[in-house]
Amino acid sequence: MESLNVALGARTYSILIGAGLLGSKRLLSGYFQSVHRVAIVSNVTVAPLYLPTLRTLMERLGITVSAETILPDGEIYKNWETLNMIFDALLVGRCERSTTLIALGGGVVGDMTGFAAACYQRGIPFIQIPTTLLAQVDSSVGGKTAINHPLGKNMIGAFYQPHLVLADTDVLKTLPDRELRAGLAEVIKYALIRDMAFLDWLETHLDALLNKDSAALEYAIYRSCQHKAEIVANDEQEHGERALLNLGHTFGHAIETGLGYGAWLHGEAVAAGILMAAELSADQGWLSRGDIARIEQLFVRIGLPVRGPAMPVDRYLELMWRDKKVQGGKMRLVLLKRLGEALIVDTATPTAISNAICARS
Amino acid sequence: MESLNVALGARTYSILIGAGLLGSKRLLSGYFQSVHRVAIVSNVTVAPLYLPTLRTLMERLGITVSAETILPDGEIYKNWETLNMIFDALLVGRCERSTTLIALGGGVVGDMTGFAAACYQRGIPFIQIPTTLLAQVDSSVGGKTAINHPLGKNMIGAFYQPHLVLADTDVLKTLPDRELRAGLAEVIKYALIRDMAFLDWLETHLDALLNKDSAALEYAIYRSCQHKAEIVANDEQEHGERALLNLGHTFGHAIETGLGYGAWLHGEAVAAGILMAAELSADQGWLSRGDIARIEQLFVRIGLPVRGPAMPVDRYLELMWRDKKVQGGKMRLVLLKRLGEALIVDTATPTAISNAICARS
Repeated sequence: MESLNVALGARTYSILIGAGLLGSKRLLSGYFQSVHRVAIVSNVTVAPLYLPTLRTLMERLGITVSAETILPDGEIYKNWETLNMIFDALLVGRCERSTTLIALGGGVVGDMTGFAAACYQRGIPFIQIPTTLLAQVDSSVGGKTAINHPLGKNMIGAFYQPHLVLADTDVLKTLPDRELRAGLAEVIKYALIRDMAFLDWLETHLDALLNKDSAALEYAIYRSCQHKAEIVANDEQEHGERALLNLGHTFGHAIETGLGYGAWLHGEAVAAGILMAAELSADQGWLSRGDIARIEQLFVRIGLPVRGPAMPVDRYLELMWRDKKVQGGKMRLVLLKRLGEALIVDTATPTAISNAICARS
Repeated sequence: MESLNVALGARTYSILIGAGLLGSKRLLSGYFQSVHRVAIVSNVTVAPLYLPTLRTLMERLGITVSAETILPDGEIYKNWETLNMIFDALLVGRCERSTTLIALGGGVVGDMTGFAAACYQRGIPFIQIPTTLLAQVDSSVGGKTAINHPLGKNMIGAFYQPHLVLADTDVLKTLPDRELRAGLAEVIKYALIRDMAFLDWLETHLDALLNKDSAALEYAIYRSCQHKAEIVANDEQEHGERALLNLGHTFGHAIETGLGYGAWLHGEAVAAGILMAAELSADQGWLSRGDIARIEQLFVRIGLPVRGPAMPVDRYLELMWRDKKVQGGKMRLVLLKRLGEALIVDTATPTAISNAICARS
């Protein structure tokens, strides 16, 4: 097992990564000492697979489960109506301010459960048990919680940190291939924005990752979480450096919103978005065609999209303008100065942005 | 003009109290220096009276108004659907993370606008301009924001502090008498929990307050906000002392939820709740019948209820168990050790609680 801390003063918390974590009372009991009552949130896909394991773990730790909510599965349900299912269960189960909410599932379950924890009685503790690669390397760490609004993704939410993150690599064995591949887009993102050595490692170990080799997965998750933890500790509320984690995301969100939530997986949209950002970076004279080809080749090996869907460019732009990264009427985009180094730019011209979209859609 | 600070480190903010504040560019310009764009939220009752004044003020301060949302009026609208009207307006108006949200209205507008500010893009600045006495002395200060859930009042919300509170006593001139009277219940609450001298002052100046005498109102609001600011600075998230502000509120929330939101005004329910808490305090041997009579007499002079509605006691208890103050399966109630001193008790027996309710319903 690997462990990491997200250093946030009194709100510092641990990320535990390893095979078989959820079955190990011994490894976990120290982390659950102050937990007496929990409410669990999962979804229809994950619950049949891992809810019994989690229930058993709670029983062995002497923890009461006061409520369980099984959400429908999918990004299209990441809305207020579904969130309200959690509130209903918490209220019917008489959950209190001291009840800990546990998210057992992928990014959607984690985002909604975290937001529910932030809002229920103005804030209760919560624990993330991410069951997708994407959630393990990205969304479960760092306290960004949210639901979608018909006019924009993740528009309604809170910065609210979990008390603990448990990433059991064993659960990835049942993860559909398409989701594993989508999750790798976010792993590659860390390499592209700040870690060339990791990019080299990923190119070398990609087959092992695609074959769900435990050691390779553990390392990739650990390294990704290390980057995320460092960035979040420096800039929790995204006033600066944290925005670098959004490489490809402004383009990606436009794809997700434009196609309707759930048509493309988040990681798929981000992959296409990263290549759009790379094209724009090349236009600024920073990346070479060879650099772009290197990213593209990785995505091709993984089976990720290397172009966005054929929406009109104006539609892309309209959706991008609604993004949270717009500031002072300027669109702020994460670009690559070189492979392994990202920066935030608000000077890209509309024409240059359009050209980058056209080149990749 | 009086001014006060709520001391919360980097999130410290000012409360300005006085007649004619909203018309005074001179007094306010220093406080709006970093504000460039705002979105205003008000309701159908308040907007016709004061939205033009606020628009003029913004214009004179050189601030752009990017969105306006006029909510329906009343506690029954303090729900997700209404909250979503604010999000819609913010998104359509392309409001950004740096846009400041302004609440112009009473407690419901303030609570919803504050919660919208806490959630929109995971948090944007907001300013409270309370237009009821209740909001000026209580709900606009301290960062408690929330909406109601069918199963409980203020169940979904956030601790999220405003950047500024502007309490213009002139706006109380148009406040319906019933609302002024309800607001006085919260003013009396401060006296009962921590300020005997203020209780004496209130008994002496009650007629001036009921006649909307500007100087009397300014003093009562200032003194109330002083208490609130001090308590919030010590205990922002209600881990201890802040809970004392809930005197009468657990009983009061049961009344509000039991009758359906809006049937009784919040201050009216709190008045009846304070007397229930007083009865229970007498049962513990702390208050004398004379003390209770003194509170009752103040409420009678104001025209506030001195009994709760005739709901079955079991219904009161059921609703009280859902309150946020329940902890570790114990009901925590604020009682009075004596007039001017409150304490939190979790040892009152169900029988004693029932008796207190029966005595006052």
